[in-house]
Amino acid sequence: MKRIKLTLSYDGTDYNGWQYQTKPNGVRTIQGIVEESLKRLTGEEIKVVASGRTDAGVHALGQVIHFDTNATIPAERFPKALEAMLPRDIIPLEAQMVDASFHARYSAKSKEYRYTIDRGKQPHVFWRRFSYHQPYPLDIEAMKQAAKFFPGKHDFSSFCASGSSAKDFTRMLETCQVSLDKQLLYIDVVGEGFLYNMVRIIAGTLVEVGKGKIKPRQITSIIAAKNRDAAGPTLPPQGLCLIRVNYN
Amino acid sequence: MKRIKLTLSYDGTDYNGWQYQTKPNGVRTIQGIVEESLKRLTGEEIKVVASGRTDAGVHALGQVIHFDTNATIPAERFPKALEAMLPRDIIPLEAQMVDASFHARYSAKSKEYRYTIDRGKQPHVFWRRFSYHQPYPLDIEAMKQAAKFFPGKHDFSSFCASGSSAKDFTRMLETCQVSLDKQLLYIDVVGEGFLYNMVRIIAGTLVEVGKGKIKPRQITSIIAAKNRDAAGPTLPPQGLCLIRVNYN
Repeated sequence: MKRIKLTLSYDGTDYNGWQYQTKPNGVRTIQGIVEESLKRLTGEEIKVVASGRTDAGVHALGQVIHFDTNATIPAERFPKALEAMLPRDIIPLEAQMVDASFHARYSAKSKEYRYTIDRGKQPHVFWRRFSYHQPYPLDIEAMKQAAKFFPGKHDFSSFCASGSSAKDFTRMLETCQVSLDKQLLYIDVVGEGFLYNMVRIIAGTLVEVGKGKIKPRQITSIIAAKNRDAAGPTLPPQGLCLIRVNYN
Repeated sequence: MKRIKLTLSYDGTDYNGWQYQTKPNGVRTIQGIVEESLKRLTGEEIKVVASGRTDAGVHALGQVIHFDTNATIPAERFPKALEAMLPRDIIPLEAQMVDASFHARYSAKSKEYRYTIDRGKQPHVFWRRFSYHQPYPLDIEAMKQAAKFFPGKHDFSSFCASGSSAKDFTRMLETCQVSLDKQLLYIDVVGEGFLYNMVRIIAGTLVEVGKGKIKPRQITSIIAAKNRDAAGPTLPPQGLCLIRVNYN
């Protein structure tokens, strides 16, 4: 038995998120499709563990999973072999054998997410699956200023969707940056861990700053409020992408 | 009756190209869908004329069409009104009223195409619809050198698919440039007009240069050969995009 760490990318548009659901039928998840493909490849019933779930419609360029297998396929061959079994919107990138102590979720040191906003007057047809179209005027400089108030160790209750099972809402956010590349506006965050919908609510709050409805320095009091109603709206899933998971 | 010039973008993946085909049924073309949507919007049977056809699977970020209509909708309102009728993979960008002498095809002065090659070891999941995945080593500098031999007024017979109805194979190519942006390699061409599959054959020939099978300075003799067999292969359609059509 060996443990494999595998990095994969996916276009989440046509999936009901990462997690395998034990619903009656017809619920298509990334995890479900990956496990099916691993079964076809190895003949084994393999359960995979991801660094974290992604919601329906959310994408990944660097999701990390681990699984245990007795298959004789060398670890490095898994991406190509698995790619042949997978639909074209899930693409394995690389794999390696890891120590049995490695855990995709618990060993993760930080995660990087990007939220992409399409600022074009009309949506960019190449980005329609991977961005949120928001063509109205935004004060980008104000958004950059506001982003500076997010990093640090805070109770992020204001940025957690209600219904979360979290007990401790304190998270360490390492960076939060706003940048513009032609018609695409990126909100990049790196953190040790994230609450449910946290990135999408941070992005929604920064858009409110862009619209002038919230002043940059108000971010401090919004965090201090520890109240979901104090922050901006949750932006839609298609703009969100898990870029990378960092391990030691 | 007024004439409208309309710029539109599309993801060509799920279409059988631009042109309306009078096949029995089931052949989905961009032109067919645009005309259907215009009918729903205006109640008129409108025939649209494009700057040129795009093949099955080829994309556009700036295709230009014209059509005549008696509809009272102001020209500038057409993009938003039409967008609501169109599937999400065809997005109108802008429209204006033009003189009756304007013709999307005959008034065009030049066209800009981009061929995109994904150089990643594994395909980038965001670009899988819009690029050709070619992960093997390529000498990019040699490709840049070779590209310099293309511009000018040449008989491009070597770069025209057989079966073309063209009688005169002379075309004026204004620019041909190779550039790299992270894992994406772009081949950008601007010209007054293009032969059938010309950009995809130029791209295929440049890839052969990248592989070392053709030397940059051989481009001159390949052009001089006026023989399709002298050039490289036709690259697949999904990497090709009509970027812009220029008018006076």
